[in-house]
Amino acid sequence: MPALRGAGLALECFRMFEARFQTFDDSSERSQSAARVAALRAEIKRRGLDGMVVPRADRQQNEYLPASEERLAWLTGFTGSAGTAVVLADRAALFTDGRYTVQAGAQVDGAIFAVMHLVESPPDQWLEQNLTGGTRLGYDPWLHTSDSAERLRQACAAAGAELVALTDNPIDALWRDRPAPPAGRVVLHGIKFAGESAADKLARIRAELKKLRADMLIVSDPQNVAWTFNIRGADIAHTPLALAFAAIPREGKPALYVDGGKLDNATRHALEDIADVRAPGALTRDAAGFRDKTVRLDQASAADTLTHLIKDGGGKPARGADPITLMKAVKNRAEIAGSRAAHKRDGAALAHFLAWFAREAPKGKLTEIDAVEALESFRRETGKLKDISFPTIAGSGPNGAIVHYRVTRASNRRIRKNELFLVDSGAQYEDGTTDVTRTVAAGKPTAEMRDRFTRVLKGHIAIATAVFPENTSGAQLDPLARTALWRAGLDFDHGTGHGVGSYLSVHEGPARISKLGTVALRRGMILSNEPGYYKTGAYGIRTENLVLVIAEPEPVGAEKPLNAFETLTLAPIDRALIDVKMLTEKERKWLNSYHARVAAIIAPLVDAKTRAWLKAATKKL
Amino acid sequence: MPALRGAGLALECFRMFEARFQTFDDSSERSQSAARVAALRAEIKRRGLDGMVVPRADRQQNEYLPASEERLAWLTGFTGSAGTAVVLADRAALFTDGRYTVQAGAQVDGAIFAVMHLVESPPDQWLEQNLTGGTRLGYDPWLHTSDSAERLRQACAAAGAELVALTDNPIDALWRDRPAPPAGRVVLHGIKFAGESAADKLARIRAELKKLRADMLIVSDPQNVAWTFNIRGADIAHTPLALAFAAIPREGKPALYVDGGKLDNATRHALEDIADVRAPGALTRDAAGFRDKTVRLDQASAADTLTHLIKDGGGKPARGADPITLMKAVKNRAEIAGSRAAHKRDGAALAHFLAWFAREAPKGKLTEIDAVEALESFRRETGKLKDISFPTIAGSGPNGAIVHYRVTRASNRRIRKNELFLVDSGAQYEDGTTDVTRTVAAGKPTAEMRDRFTRVLKGHIAIATAVFPENTSGAQLDPLARTALWRAGLDFDHGTGHGVGSYLSVHEGPARISKLGTVALRRGMILSNEPGYYKTGAYGIRTENLVLVIAEPEPVGAEKPLNAFETLTLAPIDRALIDVKMLTEKERKWLNSYHARVAAIIAPLVDAKTRAWLKAATKKL
Repeated sequence: MPALRGAGLALECFRMFEARFQTFDDSSERSQSAARVAALRAEIKRRGLDGMVVPRADRQQNEYLPASEERLAWLTGFTGSAGTAVVLADRAALFTDGRYTVQAGAQVDGAIFAVMHLVESPPDQWLEQNLTGGTRLGYDPWLHTSDSAERLRQACAAAGAELVALTDNPIDALWRDRPAPPAGRVVLHGIKFAGESAADKLARIRAELKKLRADMLIVSDPQNVAWTFNIRGADIAHTPLALAFAAIPREGKPALYVDGGKLDNATRHALEDIADVRAPGALTRDAAGFRDKTVRLDQASAADTLTHLIKDGGGKPARGADPITLMKAVKNRAEIAGSRAAHKRDGAALAHFLAWFAREAPKGKLTEIDAVEALESFRRETGKLKDISFPTIAGSGPNGAIVHYRVTRASNRRIRKNELFLVDSGAQYEDGTTDVTRTVAAGKPTAEMRDRFTRVLKGHIAIATAVFPENTSGAQLDPLARTALWRAGLDFDHGTGHGVGSYLSVHEGPARISKLGTVALRRGMILSNEPGYYKTGAYGIRTENLVLVIAEPEPVGAEKPLNAFETLTLAPIDRALIDVKMLTEKERKWLNSYHARVAAIIAPLVDAKTRAWLKAATKKL
Repeated sequence: MPALRGAGLALECFRMFEARFQTFDDSSERSQSAARVAALRAEIKRRGLDGMVVPRADRQQNEYLPASEERLAWLTGFTGSAGTAVVLADRAALFTDGRYTVQAGAQVDGAIFAVMHLVESPPDQWLEQNLTGGTRLGYDPWLHTSDSAERLRQACAAAGAELVALTDNPIDALWRDRPAPPAGRVVLHGIKFAGESAADKLARIRAELKKLRADMLIVSDPQNVAWTFNIRGADIAHTPLALAFAAIPREGKPALYVDGGKLDNATRHALEDIADVRAPGALTRDAAGFRDKTVRLDQASAADTLTHLIKDGGGKPARGADPITLMKAVKNRAEIAGSRAAHKRDGAALAHFLAWFAREAPKGKLTEIDAVEALESFRRETGKLKDISFPTIAGSGPNGAIVHYRVTRASNRRIRKNELFLVDSGAQYEDGTTDVTRTVAAGKPTAEMRDRFTRVLKGHIAIATAVFPENTSGAQLDPLARTALWRAGLDFDHGTGHGVGSYLSVHEGPARISKLGTVALRRGMILSNEPGYYKTGAYGIRTENLVLVIAEPEPVGAEKPLNAFETLTLAPIDRALIDVKMLTEKERKWLNSYHARVAAIIAPLVDAKTRAWLKAATKKL
C-alpha cells in the first residue's frame, strides 16, 4: 500500500504502526520480592527444609517460558532468560551470566539477594560455602535435568548437606494470581511445509533407536514433538510450540501426551491415526511402566523426575542426545523451499522498513519502540505473519551494545543523529522462520564505527564464503568470523551462529557456529551468521544473515566432499558503514554480488519509493 | 669441519655418516605370537580368569615405552605407539587407530588377532558383544588410568561380565628374556637452563594445591617430576626422563620416588635438600596412608592402582589435571633463551644437511637411511647433541604419505629423481628440544605437488602470522591452517601443532593447536606449527616450525591483550615447491622476511659451501 507510505503522509503512517506481538512492559515485580521470599521461607520451614533452589525453567527446559512458569521472576523480580536462585533461611543468592548481571542488579532487591556471576562464582561453590552439615536443600525435580540435579547433589554432599527432591513446588502453593497454564490450540503442520509425513519420520526415529540399542524414546523437547508429529501450537510466545511430550517405542504405536483441550476433533482424529493421544498426566504413570526397558532420555531437556520414574519402575534410563534433534536440524526440500520463500517475503518487509527508517530517522524523532512497531507492521502487511520469532532487539547508541537488549517503555530512547541503530528481528511464517540483524547509521558514522563495522563485515563474509569438507564442525568455522576483529584487539562475546527451526524455534540445536559447536554441519542445516562488535556505553554492531549448508562443487583432485553456505536473508547492508579500502577484492566482490541479488529479488516486491531506495542501497561499491 | 664436506670427498664423507641414537631394526616378533598367546591363555585360566586386557602402556602412561614395558609387542608382534589387545579363551582382538591399522595387519597373526579400528569399533563395543554372562576379564590396574578402567568396567557390566583387577601381570611371569627395567643415571638440570629453582617451583605448586583444595598431589607423569625437581634422566629413548614419581603435600617436604641406583651421591644430596628421596616401592605404602586427605591425581597418567590405594587407605582421590602440566608448558626466560640458542645451533645443522641433500640427491643414490644418518651426524657435529628427540621420519615418495613412518632396513628405499622427500626430525640439547619438518623436491616437482605444497605453506603462514586475544585456544587457531586446503577439497588428518618441552618430551601438554586443543595459549608456550598434506601411495608434504607464544603490541583502541607467535625454527623452505602466484602479497612478504632472517642468523654458523647454498635457498621470491 504505497500511498500510506507516501512522503506527505509519513507522519500519519508512522502513527498507524503498532506492535501486536511484541510488548514493551517491564514485568519485574521487585517490590513484592521481600514478602514472597518471607512466605517461601516459612513454607519450606514448615516442610522441614532449610532452603530451596529456584531455577528459571519449566518442565521441558524451554528457552522461552509461559507466564505460569516464571517462578524465578515472581520470587526475585529478575526477568532475564537465564538464572537460578538459592534461598536459605538467612541468606539468598541469584546466579546469572555475564549478559544479565547488570540487569539483575537493577531488578532484584540487594538486601535479599546477592547477585552472583554464574561462571565466576557458580552455585555449587556457593552451596559448598554456605550450606552446613545436616542442611536439607529442596529442589523440584521437574524443573532440573538429571545432570543439573547431580551437580547440586554433589555440592550438597561436599558440604555434608542433603538434596531433597520435592513432590510439589512450594512456590505454586504461594503464588496466588498465578496465570493459568497456556492452552494454545494445536494445528497440523501441512505436508506442503513439513515435507515428510509423521509416519515416515517415526520410521526413521525407530531406526535410530535400534542403532542406539534403546527400546523407547521419551521426547521431552516440545520442538521435537512438534517436528515428529507435524503439529504446531501456541503455548509459548513467538514460538509455535505445544507443550507436549511423546513416548516412541522401537516397535508399536507412540504415545502423544497433550492436553485434550488443545485439540479440535479433526486434529485429534488425524493424530490418533499415528499415536495414542493421552492426557499429560498419563506420562507419569507410563514412565513407571517400562520395566527392563532401556529408555532414551534427552540429556538436555528431560526432567530429573523422568529418570527417577523410570528407575523406580525397573526401567533403564539412558541419557544422551535425542536423535530427533539432529534429524530436525537437517531440513528437507520442502522446508528449504519454504525458507527461501519466507526470506523473500521477509526481505521485502525489511526493505520497506529500512527505506522508511532512512527517510524518518534523520528527522531525529524516532524512538526504538517506533522502529519496532514499524518493523512488525511491515511484516504484518505481508499477510502471512504468524508471529515475530522473538522480541525485536532495537538498540540505538549505547543500547545497541547490550547484546540481549529488549526495549521497554522505561528504557525506550530517541534515536539521535549520527548514532548507530542495531535491529535484530525475525518472523514466524508457516513456511519458515527468519532472523536478521542490520546495523544502520542514523546520519554520519565516525571513522571508528566504519572500521569496526567493516571488520565485522569481513567476518560475516568469511563465513558466507567458507568452503569446508564434510564433518567440519561449527567450532572450526567460528574463528573465521573473528580474525579481522582480533587484529585490532577486539572480539565479540557470543557465538557466531545458531541453528534455526522451520516454523519452529529461532534457536535450534544441535549445530552451532561457536567455540562449543562440536556437531558436524550437514547439508540442509540452517544457521545464523552473525558476528558483531559492542562498544560498551557507545554503540553495537551486528550483521546477521541466515545461511543454508549446501554442497560445494568439487574441484579437480578433491578428496573430500565439500560444503558451503547459501545466504538466505535478503536485505541491504549499510554501505555508509563500509570502509571499502579495508575489503579485499574477493570481499568487495561478494558484497556487490550479494547486493545485486538482493536488488534483483526484492525490487519487484516493493513499492516504488522503497525500490528507489533499494537501488541506491545496493549500488556497487 | 668443511674439508670433510669438500666436493671431491663427498662420497667418502657420505660413508662416514652414522646414526648412534636412531636404530633401523624392525622389532616385531610375530612368529612367536601364537605360542605366547597360548601360554597367556593357560596362565589366565590357571588364575580363574576368562580373558585379559593388554594395553600398550607402562605405569605412567608414557608415550615412548622402555623395552621392558613392551608387553603388547611381545604378545602380538605389533610395534605401533597406540594399541590394546583383548585375549579371551577362544578369540582375541587388537585395537589400534587409523595411523596403524595397515601396520597392525602386516605385523600380527590374523589367525589369532582380529585387527579392529579403535574408533569405529571400539573395545567396549567388542567386549559387550563377545563377553558372556559370568565371564571374568582381568586387567592390570597399574597399566590403566581410572578413566580407562571405568570404561572397561562398564563394558563388562553391560555384558553381565566382571572386570577383575590383577595384583601382578601374568605376562611378566611368562616373559623369559624380558629386558631389565631401565636404570638411566639421573642428573641435575642446571638453573642456567631451568631458570627456576625446584624450591620456587614447589612453592608455586603448593599455591595451586591450595586453590584446588587438595592436601596432596601425586605426580605420576615423569615429565612433571623432571620439571619440578630440575632433574633429567635416561630411562626412555630420545626423552631425558627418569621413571620417577613424587608426592607433594600442601605443607611439608615432598617425597621423590626414584630408584637409588640412578643417583650418584652429589645428586642424591642435592635432591635430599628439597625432598625425601624414597625407593619406588615406597609409593604403594605411602599412598595407602593418606587417611582423610584429598589427594589430587593426574587424570591422564595416574594408574588406577593409585586411586584404589588411596581409597582403601581412607583418603579421597580427586582426579583432574595435574597443575604442573600447565606450569611446565609456560616457559620462563632462561628456557626461552635456551630454545632460541638451540634453534640457531639446530638450524646450522639443518642447513648443512639440506645443502648436502641438494648436492647428493640428484645423483639418485641416496636412501632414506643415508639421509637419517647424515642428519644425525650433522647434529652431532654441533658437539651439543644429547639425543635426537624422536626417531627421524624420513619418507621418500609414497613413504612420505605415511604420517608416522619410521624407516627400517626392510622399508628403506632409494630417493628417486623428481620425488618429494619429507624429513621430520628433532634434537635434544641441554638448552632446548627441537622438532622440524622440511619437504624437499629431489629434482623437478609436478604442478600438483607445487599446488599442494603452497596450500600447506599458506596454512603454515596463517598460523605463523596469527594475532589472537588472550584466552584463545589452539582449537580456535587450528582451522586457519586448513582453509587453503579445504578450498581444494583436501585436508590433513592430524593436529596442526603440539606443545614441546624444554629439554624434555617433544610432545608436551596441555596446549595444542588442534580440534581438541581447548586449553588457552599462554605467552611462553612453545608449540609446533605443522600443517601437511598426504597423497596416499604418492607423496607427503609437511612444513613444521616451532613457535613461541609472545605478546603482540596492542593497536590503538584495542580492548584485549593480544598474542602472536615468534617462529623459533630457522631453516629454508624449498622455494622450488612454492607456486608464488598462489601467495597473497602478505604471505610472500612473510616468506621473504623469514628467509632473510634464516640467512642472517645461520650464514655465519656454516661452512662456505653451505653458505652459498643457503644464499640461493633464501633468495627473495
